[in-house]
Parts: sequence; structure tokens; C-alpha cells
Amino acid sequence: MKFRKVLFVLVCLLTYSLQAEDGYRLWLRHDLIQNKAIRNAYALAISKVNCQVKDTIASTAVKELTGGLSKMLGKTIGLGKVNSIAGNINLYLTTESVANLLSKKGFKPIQNEGYVIFSDKNQIHIVAKDSKGLLYGAYHFLRIIQQEKDIKKLNIQENPHLQLRMLNHWDNLDRTVERGYAGFSIWNWHELPDFLDPRYVEYARANASIGINATALTNVNANQLIFRADYIEKAAALANILRPYGIKVYLTARFSSPKELGGLPTADPNDPAVKKWWEEKVKEIYKAIPDFGGFLVKANSEGQPGPQEYGRTHADGANVLADALAPFGGNVIWRAFVYSNEEPVDRAKQAYNEFVPLDGQFRKNVMVQVKNGPVDFQPREPIHPLFGALPKTPIMMEFQITKEYLGQGTHTVGLSNLFEEVLKTDTYAKGKGSLVAKVIDGTLDGQTLTGMAGVSNIGTARNWTGNLFGQADWYAFGKLAWNPYANSDDIFEEWSNLTFGTSKKVQSVVTNILDKSHEYCVQYMTPLGLHHIMAANHHYGPGPWVSNMSRADWTSVYYHKADEKGVGFDRTESGTNALEQYYPGLANQYRNKDSIDLKFLLWFHHVAWDHKLKTGKTLWDELCYQYQEGVDGINKLADQWQSLKGQIDEERFNQVTMHFNIQKKEAKWWRDSGLAYFQTFSKMEIPKDLPKLDHDLNYYKNINHPMSPGIRPRW
Amino acid sequence: MKFRKVLFVLVCLLTYSLQAEDGYRLWLRHDLIQNKAIRNAYALAISKVNCQVKDTIASTAVKELTGGLSKMLGKTIGLGKVNSIAGNINLYLTTESVANLLSKKGFKPIQNEGYVIFSDKNQIHIVAKDSKGLLYGAYHFLRIIQQEKDIKKLNIQENPHLQLRMLNHWDNLDRTVERGYAGFSIWNWHELPDFLDPRYVEYARANASIGINATALTNVNANQLIFRADYIEKAAALANILRPYGIKVYLTARFSSPKELGGLPTADPNDPAVKKWWEEKVKEIYKAIPDFGGFLVKANSEGQPGPQEYGRTHADGANVLADALAPFGGNVIWRAFVYSNEEPVDRAKQAYNEFVPLDGQFRKNVMVQVKNGPVDFQPREPIHPLFGALPKTPIMMEFQITKEYLGQGTHTVGLSNLFEEVLKTDTYAKGKGSLVAKVIDGTLDGQTLTGMAGVSNIGTARNWTGNLFGQADWYAFGKLAWNPYANSDDIFEEWSNLTFGTSKKVQSVVTNILDKSHEYCVQYMTPLGLHHIMAANHHYGPGPWVSNMSRADWTSVYYHKADEKGVGFDRTESGTNALEQYYPGLANQYRNKDSIDLKFLLWFHHVAWDHKLKTGKTLWDELCYQYQEGVDGINKLADQWQSLKGQIDEERFNQVTMHFNIQKKEAKWWRDSGLAYFQTFSKMEIPKDLPKLDHDLNYYKNINHPMSPGIRPRW
Repeated sequence: MKFRKVLFVLVCLLTYSLQAEDGYRLWLRHDLIQNKAIRNAYALAISKVNCQVKDTIASTAVKELTGGLSKMLGKTIGLGKVNSIAGNINLYLTTESVANLLSKKGFKPIQNEGYVIFSDKNQIHIVAKDSKGLLYGAYHFLRIIQQEKDIKKLNIQENPHLQLRMLNHWDNLDRTVERGYAGFSIWNWHELPDFLDPRYVEYARANASIGINATALTNVNANQLIFRADYIEKAAALANILRPYGIKVYLTARFSSPKELGGLPTADPNDPAVKKWWEEKVKEIYKAIPDFGGFLVKANSEGQPGPQEYGRTHADGANVLADALAPFGGNVIWRAFVYSNEEPVDRAKQAYNEFVPLDGQFRKNVMVQVKNGPVDFQPREPIHPLFGALPKTPIMMEFQITKEYLGQGTHTVGLSNLFEEVLKTDTYAKGKGSLVAKVIDGTLDGQTLTGMAGVSNIGTARNWTGNLFGQADWYAFGKLAWNPYANSDDIFEEWSNLTFGTSKKVQSVVTNILDKSHEYCVQYMTPLGLHHIMAANHHYGPGPWVSNMSRADWTSVYYHKADEKGVGFDRTESGTNALEQYYPGLANQYRNKDSIDLKFLLWFHHVAWDHKLKTGKTLWDELCYQYQEGVDGINKLADQWQSLKGQIDEERFNQVTMHFNIQKKEAKWWRDSGLAYFQTFSKMEIPKDLPKLDHDLNYYKNINHPMSPGIRPRW
Repeated sequence: MKFRKVLFVLVCLLTYSLQAEDGYRLWLRHDLIQNKAIRNAYALAISKVNCQVKDTIASTAVKELTGGLSKMLGKTIGLGKVNSIAGNINLYLTTESVANLLSKKGFKPIQNEGYVIFSDKNQIHIVAKDSKGLLYGAYHFLRIIQQEKDIKKLNIQENPHLQLRMLNHWDNLDRTVERGYAGFSIWNWHELPDFLDPRYVEYARANASIGINATALTNVNANQLIFRADYIEKAAALANILRPYGIKVYLTARFSSPKELGGLPTADPNDPAVKKWWEEKVKEIYKAIPDFGGFLVKANSEGQPGPQEYGRTHADGANVLADALAPFGGNVIWRAFVYSNEEPVDRAKQAYNEFVPLDGQFRKNVMVQVKNGPVDFQPREPIHPLFGALPKTPIMMEFQITKEYLGQGTHTVGLSNLFEEVLKTDTYAKGKGSLVAKVIDGTLDGQTLTGMAGVSNIGTARNWTGNLFGQADWYAFGKLAWNPYANSDDIFEEWSNLTFGTSKKVQSVVTNILDKSHEYCVQYMTPLGLHHIMAANHHYGPGPWVSNMSRADWTSVYYHKADEKGVGFDRTESGTNALEQYYPGLANQYRNKDSIDLKFLLWFHHVAWDHKLKTGKTLWDELCYQYQEGVDGINKLADQWQSLKGQIDEERFNQVTMHFNIQKKEAKWWRDSGLAYFQTFSKMEIPKDLPKLDHDLNYYKNINHPMSPGIRPRW
């Protein structure tokens, strides 16, 4: 066949295959670099990958480098043998002499999982203390190439700030996902361990590439079946796939498993038979998964069993598991998201009240996992008061990447700003500068066990996250778990480059969407510190009128407390005084309704409808304008996306466009229904320069969506 | 860029993209033809597609032809204008003069949706009576090219034997699928109508390409929500996507919808308000979906509401819907799978008893949909006695493509032989030759409304069907719905060619697997006419010991009736006499336990363990050998598949290999547990030349799989 013909044929096939721009490849696209000059320069500079470390994780690093570089440079990058050849990329572990050399070059000591990348003469060096560091360095280097950055003077050092960087899958064993909006669970438990979906490997790659090193495979509303021998074997099959990518498997432990699975009469943590059962079970798990990470536990919360049923504390409960895991190096991650069966005056106060007295009573291998805010993953919350309040306990951050309360699968809302806002909030626990980031990276209280968990937004959707921009949230979580001091702007830019290519125009729109969308979402959903006013149960759409639930703190009226006088939850001294759970430096920022940042106003204060705010507007008018800004903002972002038509492949362009169309409608739905509802209390007019409401309150109250996604487990 | 370089780069990209041999493309691969001589010959013979019909379906035909041919031939096949140019493919509708011409060429009259393809001088003609016929002809022609067959003397005529060729999705509105083993529902109702998954188009293509022209989107265990205005809009969005591919949308109608959605006090079909409600609802649906197909209804069956609650008959129930649909040309498909709340002596008799008296009472636009057998989609059943017994009623066949009772998602079992066995069974309704195929194609009783439904095996699995070979069942269903006289061997060969290419070695293994696997499955699950001995509820795995259910006819012991004397359900005169529901010509084949085909023995007879069969073996020994043959057979097929290593892309090869590994284990599980159980009655030894059982009966009884897939609706 002639060249021209071969060429034509290949172009045809290529066109065909490239149609499938469905988002499956995430930020790991590794497409051929289109800029010829840059590609040629890279091709000249890079020839071989040379790695003398031979374990499975190092082999992954080599495979990723040779594979990714070959694709991007359009030439085969093979394996090199000797360090001194030009064009080599050398991967190796530090020794004393290497450390000295690096020190002279101005690098700090390399920590576990950290790495250094530097150019030297005609070679590139990726140095680490362990194979995981080499793997992370390899992915970092691939990102540099993918973004077409200069590699002549590389001088990069990265050490992770947190030890455990972990996804929490709220995935049930029947493949439904609680609060899952991207289809169903990627874990096909039924066909494991024999059928291994290639997607498992892609999952491992994606996570490793952003530094995630642990995953809890199962829902915190846990099922004891996971501890049955056949399920342990299934989990082990996944662990075998994740291991070469440096990812450890955790499982959620249902506290009553010794009864339900073990047939014991009790699950009392102080009962010797119960202790024994956990010890034996842990042994069995480690036999199948030698590097098993440990247990994630939700106990005495929302109906989950726990130690309090036996008059024991959370510490008692955590410690029995911790003792079983300790000989194998496993950890217990014990969630602080607990609330008692009795309805509290203020649910926001409860975790603090329960856990502060326990500080110091947990075993060394127990971490307490605290949600970012005191209620429940709202569009915006003040930080959880437990940050800084448990100096003797390792605290793990729990963020929710899946957007249960932020538009679920269809709204394009960048979460990185939310994460960053939390991490950079000053707890004042040890005076000014006691950032949440310092609590969780252990520097504030000298903790050595550190971590961050993100509730996964991944599902069977071909593009993993349903909404394409959900990929950016997953990405940002990984980046911030590695470095909780990172800036969202940098993360946005990097994700945009890796996902959509290096066009400046595209980058500017994509990063603007990621930067602005969270604030707009807060505005059209829960402006001015409103919270938990979503529809009941599935939390899809507005439901400020929700008042009739089995417990008061599941209703909306409990949280907004609207009445004829005003709206907002008084958490100051005149109210529940939840404010006092914060250190004074922070509490003082919130105490006064006239000086508090408006974004937290109604979280802490009940404010009269006609109260004049510092903006010069009455509360009611401000509420109206805030809602409208959110709606207008999302419309603006959607328009900006339209300006990219033709600059992004059609399939992904259309995906995002269709989701923006839903979001525009729903933003208006949120605004109109919220104002229609609150207007029944304020009796005030919507400012004349703002659009009227389309319907009356009854119309909005009658909307219902019984089939909304995010399914509760079968039992 | 130099040619060599461009070439290299393209090869690189291509290699990358071709790695994704994940089965998503089904039988519509349209890869470049590798055989140069054949490709060149095609390229010489084909230049343009010329179609003067301008509607959307004809446009689809043109798009499929130009797209598919361009890819396969490696040259652009564009649009032609004039009929007389060499290399044209001409698509046109018959006129009187065309009909005369075709008649002279020996073709029979073209029927609705039928087509003729013939070569004439240097052109190819695809002629039809309507645009759908052109579309089906186009797909047929593409299959010829894809299989690299000669196109010089094309002389093809196809008229569909059945009018309605329909998939039934048992998909719930929350995306779970009852009896779904390929992930979850491809219909993302929550994000419809705004978000349109590209998979919807691929679904339409795949179905149209095998002649399927209707789809019931929702589960027969129906939810009235589908009739709410917003859900009608969602269904309309899907109808809009399916319409250009000639596929009509049907919905399942919950009989109590007038109460639940309409707020009426009753759903009595004779109540004027109820009639009115259905009329209005149908009007509303047709406004959104002008070519809406009609309703599929499961009533008074397994807890579904129905007319009998009001003392009305199935005919009364069907007719109220039919009257509402008639002005718009819609149909009611009323399922005969009914059984009363009182437990019958023999469930196999019930549908016949209920429906025979109603023959002639249904409106003209009602079809009664009858499952292939009288119990419930077992690995093998005799035909349903209703075939031939309702001469005044259009009968629609219902097959189950999803393998609820045949190994579900993991067993490789070709269903075409099962379908064919049923269709070619002689009912003797009007004497010898009264095949089931003749009942359902209308020729036996002069019916003009004809059809076949298949319960879909499609889900979110990337390869659509979970088990790759499930694609063959979908394919075979389409082919047999078009022509119920077709031979499975031809279907297997065609599917193999289209799916794995034209290698003879591959074809011989693939067709052998499809041909043999069903019989082996019957043998390792339910040999000798045993039936319904699966585990309870989810039906995954063996459960011959199931005896404690809320109704007797859901248990296994009800169906196998094993005792110390023997095993089997006496359905002869000495038993329930279900036999007499068949016409004598067929009943006589089953009446005698010594002459009956052994495959139906225990369906109709209770046989003593030590009874000597015509094989010369006792019943017990025969049972043992049958079970073993099934196990051995599957192992043989799995080995044959291994012989294809390297001849099929790695990804699909591994998919099938992994599933065979599961099936081999489970076949043994079926055999061992079945024999362990029945041995407690027979008290006889397993023949010494057969393997011993691995475990005792208790071991097998204690196996449970509460998380088996195939989820019941939430409500």
C-alpha cells in the first residue's frame, strides 16, 4: 500500500476513534503534542527511562512514563540502562550521597512519598525516598510535558503534607451509591474476584496521578457482609489491582458485625468474645490483604449501631478495633459525624460536645474524621468547631466531593474554593495563624498521623463523574490532600490544561467557571448563611418548607427558623450559643450581626427582615439580590462556555452545555421557590428591578422528585 | 511534516485508541477491511450513495451507508445525485413501474418495512416500500461489506414476518433494572429531557440495524409516575432520538394510575371517569409523542393492580386502554403472565384457563403477550399452551433475553437455540405444521397484528450486555423477530463475523460456543425437564431446597416434587392434567413417560428414581450423567475459547475468559448442590466413574447471595 493511502486510511480510523471524546480519559489524556517545535524539542531531550528500582510500584512509574511520553512525543520512549546517557530520565532512591548532593542544590530532605525532579546536563532526574515518591514524580513529570512546559531547568520538590489521602466511597454492595450522581458503583462486587473490569486499573491510575493513596471501598452506612470470607476475597482482588499504584484499601466496619456475622449475643466493645472476634477478623483480612489500611467507622449516627448501645464511649468503640489492627499497622478512622437519637437543640453543637471529653482517650492508631462544617456538607458552612479542639487526637478532614447539597450530578460547581476556604480558616486554637490546614497536617499539635478524606463523586458514568466538571473536584481534592496550602487558582489552571489542552482562551473560561461557580451556587441555593433548606431525603432541589420529618433536625424550618420577625438560626449567647464552641478569635468574627461576614449571617443570627445590613440594604432586599446574583452568575458562566464552541471537541462541549441548561433552569427554581417561601414571612415586595416570580408558593411546594438519584442501601 | 512522520504519529494514536476494544461497538464495527484485494474491489465498485427520499429515516439510511462504507473502504463515500452513474448505491421507493421491473426479476411484492437489494450493471439498488425498508436495506448491505461478501450478483429480498419487533426494558425509573445483569438502566430519567446521553443514539442504531422497531422503555412492574407531565416530556426526548431510526416508544401502564396519579377514587375500567382519564392521558402523550406506540400492561399478576379488583376481566381492562389509544393508532399489549393470589394446583395451567374464555373479547388493537413457556423463562420449557389456543386474538411472543434463569450476567449461554426450539414447535392447533412461528406471524389464524417482544439484556455495562456473548442473544432476538423461521446457525455465523471478524477459526469456535452452550446450561442447571429450582427471589444459583416462601408456587419443591419414590411434576391425567391444555398432536408426544423426549420428562412426569429410561440408565443415573455432561461441556467450550488467544483483541478475549472462569465454578456448584439435594431422596450412589461431590448438602444450603443483581423497584 502506498504511503498516501495508508495515511488516508489511518486518518479515517483516527477520526472514527477520536469521536469518542467522552471524558473517560480524565486528565490523563497524553495526546500527541500538536505544537511541532515543542514536540521536537521534547523528542530531542528525552530518549529513555532508566530505573533500577524493581518493585511493582516503581514498575508502574516506568510504565506510565514510557507509555505517556511515547504517546505525547510521537516516538517510542524505551527503557534505558545506564545513568550517564543523554536523554535519560533517571528514577532512583536517595542515598546518603544523593541526599548530600540534593542538599547542595538547595533541596530540603525528601520525605516519605515525596520527590525531587531536576534537570542536569542532558538528563532528568526523579529522586525519591520510596517507590511511591518515584511514581508521584513520574506523574508530575508527565503533567509538565502534557502542559508543554519548559524542562530545561527543572527544579521541583514536593513532599506531601498529609499522610493519608483518601477517597471514601459511599458505595453499597448492591452497586447503588448513597449520594451518588454519576450512575452506580464502579465496584461490581457480584462478579468479583473473577471478573476484573479494566476500569479498576484506570481508577487506580487516576488516583495515583494526583497522589491519592487510600480508598475506603464501602459505604459508611455499612454492611457486615463485607467481612464474609467471599467478600474479603473480592476486596483482596481490588487491593491487588490498586497496590501497584500505591493505593491501600480500607473497609467500613459495621459495629454490630460480631453479632450479625459472628453470631455473638453482643457487640459490646468490652466483651472479650467481641474483642476476639475483631482480632480474628482482622487477621483473616490481613491474610488476604497484607497491606490492608484499616477500618472507617460510622457509629451511633443516623441509625448505625455503635458502642453507646452498651453504655460505652466512642473511644471504647474505636479502641477495640484499633487494638485488633495495631499489630498489622492498620488504622481506625472514626467519624465524628454523630448525633444522638434524641433531637438536640442545635445539631451543630453535638459532635463537639461528644468528642471533646474523649480527647486523649483514643489509641495511637485512631484518627477522628471530622466533616468540614458542623452540620452536613452544605454549600457553605463555617468550619467545624472540632478543628483545634482535640489537640491530643489525630484529626482527619472529611470533605464531600459528591455534590449532595450542591446541585448533585447536573450543576457545574467548582468545589476547590469551598475546600480552600475551610483549610485556610484560622481556628485561633493556638492564637492567630492556627489554620485548619495546620490542624490536619499535624503541625499545630504535633500529630504524626494525618489525613484528608473525600467522599467520592465517581460512578459508572462514562466520564466518571457525570458532570464533566466534577472531574475538577476530584482533581482538586487530590491536590489539596497532598498540599492543603495549595491555591485553587493553580489547581484550576492545571486541570484545565490537562483536560482541555493549553489554549489560553479555553483556559480562561474554564478556570473562571471553576472559580466563580461555587459562590453563585451558594447564592442561588442558600444565600447569606442559610443552610439545609433542600428537599427532604434525597436533597435534590429546594425545600425550605420541609417541616414534617421523623426528627426536627432533618427539617428545613429547624435550620432557617423563619418567622414574621425575621430569619436565621441564633447561635449566639441569646440562642444556642454554638458560637462558644469556637475559639474567641474566630467566635468574635461571628458574634455581631452587624460586623459578621454576610456569608455567615443567618448561620449565626436571627435577623429582622427590615434590618439594615452593612450593604445599606434591608435583609429582605439583600436576600432578593443575592438570589438573583446567583441566577445571573450561572447564566453568565453558561454563556462563557458557549464562547468555546468549536474550540473544544463537540462531545464534551455538548455534555457541559446540556448540564448548564439544566442548571440555569434549576437556579431559577431555587431562587423563585426560596423567595416565594420566605415572602410568606417577610410580607415584603421583591425589589422592582428584579424579575417577578414565575409561580406561587403552592406550585413549588407541589414539585416532587421521588426518583432522584443517590440511593439508600437496600438494608 | 514528512509523510513518514505523520504516518508514525497516526499509527501511535491509532494504537492508543484501538486499545479500547471494550465491546461498545457491538456488531457495528465497520473497521477498515484488512484484505487489500477485497477492499480495493469494493472501492472500485462503490462511489456514491444516491437517495432522493428526504425524510429523517431515509436520511439515517444515507448517513449509515456513507459513514460505514467510508470507514470500511478507506475512502470517502459521498452523496450521489443521478441514478445512472457507475458506482452508485441507489436508494428509492417502489412505484408501479419499479414493482413490475422487480417482478420480472423474480422478486415478490415488497411489504411494509421490507426491501430488495440487487446489483445491476455497475450499480447497486436498495428498493423499499417505505423509508424504514431503505434503512433496513442499508444495514443489510453494510453487513455484506463487513463480512467481505461478493456484491456483484446481489439478489436479496427481505420482508419482515412480524410487524412489531420490540424490546421490553424492565427498567425502573430510578435506573435499577429488575432482572438486569449488565449494570443499570441506560435511561437516565433524572437528567432527561435536557441531558441526552450519546449512548441513546448508539442504542437506536444497534436496534435498527437488526430490525427492531419498538421499545417499551419502562418496567412491566410499572410506576404511574411515567404518566406525569414531566416524565412524558422525558419519554418524548427519547422518542425524538429513536424516531429517525424507525423505533417507536411504548410505555408500561400501571392499571391503577387513574387513582394514584389522577386522584380518582377508582380505576374500574367501566367507570366513565376512569375511561375519561385514560382518554385525556393518551391525548397528552400523543401531543408529545405523535408516533407513540401504545401501552404494555402487566395486570393482576404478582401484586400488580388490574381490572379483576373491580370484578372485571382482562378484556375489560385491556379494552378501556385500547379505546383510548385507537383514535391515534396505538396498541395495547396485555401480558398473559398472570396468576391469581390464590395458589393454584399448577401455575402452568393458569394463564390458559384465564385467557381462553376471553378469546374474541379484545379490541382489534389489543395483543396478548405470551411468554414462551407456561412457567417463567426457564432454561427449557415446553411451549405455552396458549399458542394456538386464542385464534381470535393477536398473540405476541415474549422471550426473555436477559438471563434471569440462565446464569444471569456471567454465564456464556447462547439463547438463539432456545428461541428457535420454541418457534419451531408444532402446536398442532390446525393439524400438523401449526408451528408457533405461524401462530405469531398471523398466518395460522389470519391475524394481521403480529409481533415478538424480548426482555432486554442491555444495561450501562460498557459492552451493553455484561457478558460479551449476551450481544449475540440481543442480535438473535432481532433476527428471529424479523424472521421466526430463521436458523440459529446462520445467525451465529453472521454475528461472529460482524463481532470478531471473518477468521474461519474464530468463527468456528464462536459459533460452536453459541450452539452448544444452551444445552450444557440446561444440563448443569435443570436437566431432564426439571425447572424453577433456582435460589429464591434473585434466582441466582441453585436452590432446589427452597420451600419456605409466601406462596407455594414460588418454591422449588412445588416444581420438582422430589420424594423418596421419585422426582418430577405429574402434569398428566394422574396429576394436574396440564397436558390436556395442549392439542392432542403435541400432548401425545408428552403423555407417556417412556416415549417422551427426555428433555421434558420431569416437566410432565413424576418418575421413580430407579425407573429405567430409554437410555438404559435409571433415572437417578441419567440425572447424574446429565449434570456431569453440562459441567464437562462448559469446560470444553471454555477451553475452545482459550484456543483463540492471540486471534482476538486482548480486552474482549479476557472479558470472555473471566466470565468462563466464573461459569466453570458455578456449573460445578449447580451440579454438586443439585445432586447432594436429590440424593437425600433417592438414597442412591453417584456412579463411580463420575466425580464425587465436594461438599455435603448443608454446605450448599448455607451459601447465600443477598446482593445478587437484578433489583426490584423501590416502590
